[in-house]
Amino acid sequence: MIEPAFEKAGGLVPAIAQDAATGEILMLAYMNSESWRLTVETGTAHYWSRSRGKLWKKGESSGNVQKVREIRIDCDSDAVVLKVEQAGGAACHTGFKSCFYRVVRDGVLVVEGERVFDPDEVYGAS
Amino acid sequence: MIEPAFEKAGGLVPAIAQDAATGEILMLAYMNSESWRLTVETGTAHYWSRSRGKLWKKGESSGNVQKVREIRIDCDSDAVVLKVEQAGGAACHTGFKSCFYRVVRDGVLVVEGERVFDPDEVYGAS
Repeated sequence: MIEPAFEKAGGLVPAIAQDAATGEILMLAYMNSESWRLTVETGTAHYWSRSRGKLWKKGESSGNVQKVREIRIDCDSDAVVLKVEQAGGAACHTGFKSCFYRVVRDGVLVVEGERVFDPDEVYGAS
Repeated sequence: MIEPAFEKAGGLVPAIAQDAATGEILMLAYMNSESWRLTVETGTAHYWSRSRGKLWKKGESSGNVQKVREIRIDCDSDAVVLKVEQAGGAACHTGFKSCFYRVVRDGVLVVEGERVFDPDEVYGAS
């Protein structure tokens, strides 16, 4: 199977999830070889959670899975773009459509994003 | 100065350069604190070259600099999006507009990208 240069990259490569329809960048996560294989075979995005140290099917808790429409590999084979259809309309665990919902403007961070869901309702209040 | 969580990330965070006009993802590179500061202060993209182990002003050899129109930080403060105007029309050292010029299709890599320049002419034949 064609795959990124996982070994050269130390096992993980960054994967950018991009809205297949609008081009909006939704999130950046990491993939290992197993998550790559599952993504290609199932057509649903799988990543490697560095914080939890485990395979992570995106949307396994929230239901907000990502159907993969296209996969691209960069010139050095150490970064990936997934063009996806984002179920639920939001990729970010905070409820925003995109994890990149904060803009640097005049030296401060400004929230500029669309909040789609209340995380307490989706994941349960903590 | 507002900045990503470089310390938590081990000094480097991935930075995605996206065409400000079209939304096309041009490349993924890495930033350290100094390249972040220079990018914010000058409005021109600076990265950290992991292969060369040095600060890298994008376009310093090719002239294909990136004017930064917007900077976004993700929810965990460990990834960055730069919306840029790409001078010369190409971000990739291979001469393609985007480094992500290869698509996985039916298990093989297919070149699907716009080649803008001949790298031998820009960098000199090797």
